[in-house]
Amino acid sequence: MRVFNFAAGPAALPLEVLEQVRGELTDWQGSGASVMEVSHRSKPFLAVAREAERLLRELLAVPESYKVLFVQGGATGQFAAVPLNLARADSAVDYLNTGHWSKKAIGEARRLAGKVSIVADEGASRYTTVPAAETLRLTPGAAYVHYTPNETIGGVEFPYVPDTAGVPLVADMSSTILSRPLEVSKFGLIYAGAQKNIGPAGLTVVIVREELTGKSRPGTPAVWDYKGIAEAGSMLNTPPTFAWYCAGLVFRWLRAQGGLGAVAARNRAKAELLYQAIDGSGFYSNPVARECRSWMNVPFTLATPSLDETFVAEARRAGLANLEGHRSVGGMRASLYNAMPLEGVQALVAFMKEFERRHG
Amino acid sequence: MRVFNFAAGPAALPLEVLEQVRGELTDWQGSGASVMEVSHRSKPFLAVAREAERLLRELLAVPESYKVLFVQGGATGQFAAVPLNLARADSAVDYLNTGHWSKKAIGEARRLAGKVSIVADEGASRYTTVPAAETLRLTPGAAYVHYTPNETIGGVEFPYVPDTAGVPLVADMSSTILSRPLEVSKFGLIYAGAQKNIGPAGLTVVIVREELTGKSRPGTPAVWDYKGIAEAGSMLNTPPTFAWYCAGLVFRWLRAQGGLGAVAARNRAKAELLYQAIDGSGFYSNPVARECRSWMNVPFTLATPSLDETFVAEARRAGLANLEGHRSVGGMRASLYNAMPLEGVQALVAFMKEFERRHG
Repeated sequence: MRVFNFAAGPAALPLEVLEQVRGELTDWQGSGASVMEVSHRSKPFLAVAREAERLLRELLAVPESYKVLFVQGGATGQFAAVPLNLARADSAVDYLNTGHWSKKAIGEARRLAGKVSIVADEGASRYTTVPAAETLRLTPGAAYVHYTPNETIGGVEFPYVPDTAGVPLVADMSSTILSRPLEVSKFGLIYAGAQKNIGPAGLTVVIVREELTGKSRPGTPAVWDYKGIAEAGSMLNTPPTFAWYCAGLVFRWLRAQGGLGAVAARNRAKAELLYQAIDGSGFYSNPVARECRSWMNVPFTLATPSLDETFVAEARRAGLANLEGHRSVGGMRASLYNAMPLEGVQALVAFMKEFERRHG
Repeated sequence: MRVFNFAAGPAALPLEVLEQVRGELTDWQGSGASVMEVSHRSKPFLAVAREAERLLRELLAVPESYKVLFVQGGATGQFAAVPLNLARADSAVDYLNTGHWSKKAIGEARRLAGKVSIVADEGASRYTTVPAAETLRLTPGAAYVHYTPNETIGGVEFPYVPDTAGVPLVADMSSTILSRPLEVSKFGLIYAGAQKNIGPAGLTVVIVREELTGKSRPGTPAVWDYKGIAEAGSMLNTPPTFAWYCAGLVFRWLRAQGGLGAVAARNRAKAELLYQAIDGSGFYSNPVARECRSWMNVPFTLATPSLDETFVAEARRAGLANLEGHRSVGGMRASLYNAMPLEGVQALVAFMKEFERRHG
């Protein structure tokens, strides 16, 4: 029995993908071995790796002038790799602070970049807002501007892409990549941990404008030097082959879903359904300003917090799993990544109404 | 139909492990989700993670004074992490050069450590030997001594653990860890990419004496700071959960095999069988000095190199896969990691005899 899995990441994967993985787990493509057991440099695996890149480029319409890299270390690794690759030790860099993951990125930049300016901080709203586009005061000559388009914990999402007037824009898209079409050319660099909309944890995707590579600081670890990784086709060392293979299957599934336009329409409908249920209730609430509510991560609280545990337990019995809020904020959180079907959100909304009727 | 898979890494995994993975791939422990789809911080996954560490400690008899870390980035990542954590920017560090992977480690150290001394270089034998224990001239006051106990490509293995007179000994054990019992207390730090004897690619195990942590250089990326990783229980950020879970299954399988003493006896028998077949033939040869031949990776050449492709193709048809030598050396290579049964080596030896009879 499969549940509707609202985990924030590692998160639900499409059942069709998991079933294909299972079907060929001990004998992949008639090789007599698992895909986990073959060399990353073997022809069959190289075909998988290249197809995954090709599909990702197709889905996101990545321009030829961008490199697509498959690396390890997660977004937290990229918190370090970004300043090491894009900034000199004395460079000024700009960061927008919209919550938990922004702060983590800023913390690492403070250790590794020369001068870190926080050009927006939404602390006054308790990180339930994003800065208005016209209020950003960027540092002239900054090496880059970094932001978090979707805050997984706060459930806050930028409804626009900041205009940085030519300064490379760097985005941690871990929890929003592939949820809708994207204008890649507005970005200098995009990175994303795989474990939300791409595949299993342990794979990180980096999409970087080629002209930004080749400038890494002396002392940058080789496995994080963008130019070296690109030249090696992301096989500078053994990549996480199984996760890369799974990512390719997810990309193929996304194409079969109709591509990101169709996926975006479904994601919008899922999020609207849940936010309407929350807003239309006197029992549930979401603190985020409406214009910047996340499609992917919907935190909500109960009017009676002492019922949190009951809610989680009853939801679990109803086949709705992993709704606990992040340990730093409590309450509930429903993550609605691509692999969550509309039926899952409908079931959640029905459960919430019934729960409110009984306990509200 | 499963083949006998002689790949050097990613390499064969125990069939029992793969079958368990397959059996619970879409519904793990009755959760209604795959192990890939649940939070690393959930109780069920934490139990998996802690059991994997406990089993690894038990198998290798890791003393309490050592931390066991599960990280990303591969051995190549550790080539950088080791100097960043254990050496200051101006420290002297010693490296032994016994071939391909030693050189890679040295290359990264030269970029990241102050003064790198090569205290042994087996170039004169074309890296078919290891230095005699008594010839090592270590640098007084070096921050550490690094070596590669088993060279995966050269097929050269140290039959002894270097005595470093108190200087921390660092070992890249990617291709030899868990192949036999180990005296961990002789080492300051052991690291290993998972994709040979541990599990799927994308996971790296680090075993480090606790007193060596907490001294990382300013600017060390957080995801590679040993102390920070240890304090976070290797969950500073999302770990490669699926690979970690598989590693735990492999560790359990190793215990069921009778532990590393029993595993070592089988590995020795497998290697002896193959080396005897090579040495007893006028057609096959292995260049490595007998006292330091690897149990794990057995390179061999044919008297008629033009038959290489025929050998590989016919072997493949006989169910013996991935015997091509590394692209840098050619010839053949049979990797005999723990998951290779004796029957696989027997089948290989029988095939080699038959091939020699027909083509020799």
